[in-house]
Amino acid sequence: MGKANVNLRGKDILALEYLSIEEIQTILETAKEMKNVIHRDIKKVPALRGKAIVTLFYEPSTRTRSSFELAGKYLGADVINITAGTSSIVKGESLRDTLYTMEAMGVDAIVMRHKAEGAAEYASKVVSPVIINAGDGAHAHPSQGLLNLFTIMEHRCPDGNFKGMKAAILGDILHSRVARSDIQGMRKMGIEVHLAGPKSLMPRFLFEEEGIVVHDRIEDAIKDADVINVLRIQLERQKSGLFPSPREYARIFGLNDERLQLAKKDVLVLHPGPMNKGLEISPFVAYGENSAIQEQVQNGVAVRMAILTHALAGGKE
Amino acid sequence: MGKANVNLRGKDILALEYLSIEEIQTILETAKEMKNVIHRDIKKVPALRGKAIVTLFYEPSTRTRSSFELAGKYLGADVINITAGTSSIVKGESLRDTLYTMEAMGVDAIVMRHKAEGAAEYASKVVSPVIINAGDGAHAHPSQGLLNLFTIMEHRCPDGNFKGMKAAILGDILHSRVARSDIQGMRKMGIEVHLAGPKSLMPRFLFEEEGIVVHDRIEDAIKDADVINVLRIQLERQKSGLFPSPREYARIFGLNDERLQLAKKDVLVLHPGPMNKGLEISPFVAYGENSAIQEQVQNGVAVRMAILTHALAGGKE
Amino acid sequence: MGKANVNLRGKDILALEYLSIEEIQTILETAKEMKNVIHRDIKKVPALRGKAIVTLFYEPSTRTRSSFELAGKYLGADVINITAGTSSIVKGESLRDTLYTMEAMGVDAIVMRHKAEGAAEYASKVVSPVIINAGDGAHAHPSQGLLNLFTIMEHRCPDGNFKGMKAAILGDILHSRVARSDIQGMRKMGIEVHLAGPKSLMPRFLFEEEGIVVHDRIEDAIKDADVINVLRIQLERQKSGLFPSPREYARIFGLNDERLQLAKKDVLVLHPGPMNKGLEISPFVAYGENSAIQEQVQNGVAVRMAILTHALAGGKE
Repeated sequence: MGKANVNLRGKDILALEYLSIEEIQTILETAKEMKNVIHRDIKKVPALRGKAIVTLFYEPSTRTRSSFELAGKYLGADVINITAGTSSIVKGESLRDTLYTMEAMGVDAIVMRHKAEGAAEYASKVVSPVIINAGDGAHAHPSQGLLNLFTIMEHRCPDGNFKGMKAAILGDILHSRVARSDIQGMRKMGIEVHLAGPKSLMPRFLFEEEGIVVHDRIEDAIKDADVINVLRIQLERQKSGLFPSPREYARIFGLNDERLQLAKKDVLVLHPGPMNKGLEISPFVAYGENSAIQEQVQNGVAVRMAILTHALAGGKE
Repeated sequence: MGKANVNLRGKDILALEYLSIEEIQTILETAKEMKNVIHRDIKKVPALRGKAIVTLFYEPSTRTRSSFELAGKYLGADVINITAGTSSIVKGESLRDTLYTMEAMGVDAIVMRHKAEGAAEYASKVVSPVIINAGDGAHAHPSQGLLNLFTIMEHRCPDGNFKGMKAAILGDILHSRVARSDIQGMRKMGIEVHLAGPKSLMPRFLFEEEGIVVHDRIEDAIKDADVINVLRIQLERQKSGLFPSPREYARIFGLNDERLQLAKKDVLVLHPGPMNKGLEISPFVAYGENSAIQEQVQNGVAVRMAILTHALAGGKE
Repeated sequence: MGKANVNLRGKDILALEYLSIEEIQTILETAKEMKNVIHRDIKKVPALRGKAIVTLFYEPSTRTRSSFELAGKYLGADVINITAGTSSIVKGESLRDTLYTMEAMGVDAIVMRHKAEGAAEYASKVVSPVIINAGDGAHAHPSQGLLNLFTIMEHRCPDGNFKGMKAAILGDILHSRVARSDIQGMRKMGIEVHLAGPKSLMPRFLFEEEGIVVHDRIEDAIKDADVINVLRIQLERQKSGLFPSPREYARIFGLNDERLQLAKKDVLVLHPGPMNKGLEISPFVAYGENSAIQEQVQNGVAVRMAILTHALAGGKE
């Protein structure tokens, strides 16, 4: 992977389908350097001094919000947090007006999470600050897709050549923005994607594309996989009737040690967190030697530092 | 408007009635420079480095709280946020003790919002940090009054001479701290103020002063106006019976395009936000060419930077 | 008290029983210097620039959380706040996974409050960042114990020799982490501790040690005391039946002016805040000349600056 040198300044990060292979490579390369910063005794790169970032979350989150907040602060930016519930969003201010407000206040980037698909894209159309989609309904979560690619790269293809790998994505594909961003990113980089989960939670026509295979049994998806991404099960969905009981789920669709044996010996296990251990993933696998789940969190900060640096300052200099 | 050079260091900003014309001019002049900072690529003026500001909000707010937080951060100050609900204010700590706590922690300014009229004044009497009233019940919201003046100045009197202008303030005057701060600031600067709204929401005796005219019909208030400030309608108040139905309200008191024609051609439309579009203001007017509503938000940050700089550091140097 | 010069770098601050006399002295000495910083016009010591601190609070708090946040910011650290309720802790992420997440994000210190006794110790075992216990159930609140010692030192023994002093701790000893940390710290430094409160709220066997005396009547505990620490009464406990009525409590166990006369003339009155005035302490005593309650808050920031500096940077240089 050579220096791609693509300029991403001012680019909204809405979904991986809108990033070129070169842009993805550029972000992953910068993330490598940023990861070193996180390990330093003094975690400060003043690349974004004098820039203002707002995290605007209409759904609760520790992980993603903190990850972006720390990424911004490590880069020297000012970061403010707005969460529905503690903010006057309770007064019923529309998304549009909140975005206008943030723009008018001189904010350089809006990192936003919203329950509606397309919310980030909408934002990118109505205001000028860089919009970074931190999750819009079941649509996309591009920084998660990128951190997964970065984690895979570090373990399986330091040269950045993902081609020929096989990834399995397990669980509630239908409602998962992580799955969607993964699929887009992985396909773009040449990874073959195998999907499995309860039938009621599988999209029917969406992925009838080259390089995407839908399985009935998770065992078939896992077989010979280089990477397994286990999705978080939203327990709330059970009420909808789309869903087997937790015990049933674990028995049929949970990733346990026995099933892991079907994959390649050095398979990489990913999970976006927070995990329901004993449900979609067994504790043994979650904390086992194939798990890169904790590393994903660290890589998340590095990748977000890279995203923010490129989108706000055009690069590393 | 010449350099006023008034020293405001240590001054509590409780209500515009306590600021002299010169003090208001000084703040507006500094705000002009601060507005340039917000447009810069690097938004940092280290005027308040080493100062600590707390935003202490007993009522929810995105706009005002974020505006002060960003203003403080752009100036290099440390800012911490305390909101009732996420804080141990739930343990029932009295306002007095919370103020004492903030003072003892070395905080230089307390930006506070409270539902009780006089809360900020009370605070200014019991503790030594600079108190900046960010809204106390229906009493005052001085930074909003100042940002309105600033917005008017930029559009209609760059020389700072507001005399002879006519402003209309429309809506629930009785419960509005914005109206009160507007009236005080505008009268001080020589603007004639015309008020209109539902009879049940008009104060009876309060404004029987020179330069303040109360109208029954909003058309009469709007006529030939240079500025129209449309107040936010608190939908909660309807339960009180003081209030017509929303449809009725919009029909009789809403600012729509037709009514806007009664004002001067280049009339400036203001609204403190968040707007109930279709109620007190039509979407057409809200986003129309006379609207300075988004600009008000930007000016809010600039004016708050000016207020904080003067009150905490005594000026710009 | 000479320069102790103990290196505390990397040390978790879980409970005062794990700190040596020299370590306590070292922290108190540094706190003296930090207190000067809080009084300066420019409150910035860049000792922790490039360090990241997270406050992770599973129970609401204004005082302690803000105190640590300001302490970190005065030292130039990046501080982020996570509170259960506004965070995805609502998604049911386990404490363990949240800790792993914070560790992976490169955080240098986790300041945590949790309702479970031993939560901080558990954290110190599973992750590598410095853990600072900001309260774990009824177990410990070491920074509060240290700030109390610091307050006593400033008033009664500037030389750091606490030996021979008599302290009374009044109230709900059974459920109080403040009491536990006080007792440990005071005993370590040679202060005699006298306890009194409702019988149902006194631990039975726990303190049958040298230097700790349990009394039935608070008058006996107060007699000739150099220091009285009045604990906060948790009104919620009343439902449990362990507890007299508020009026009864104030009458029998409240610290009022009359009872204060029993102590030494220059007795120091402490309270961890927030106070229930008129219940465990009379307003007269709370704001009277023997009260150091406000000072405790200021000393809290100084002591926390000292703790963070030593634990994260190994000292003051």
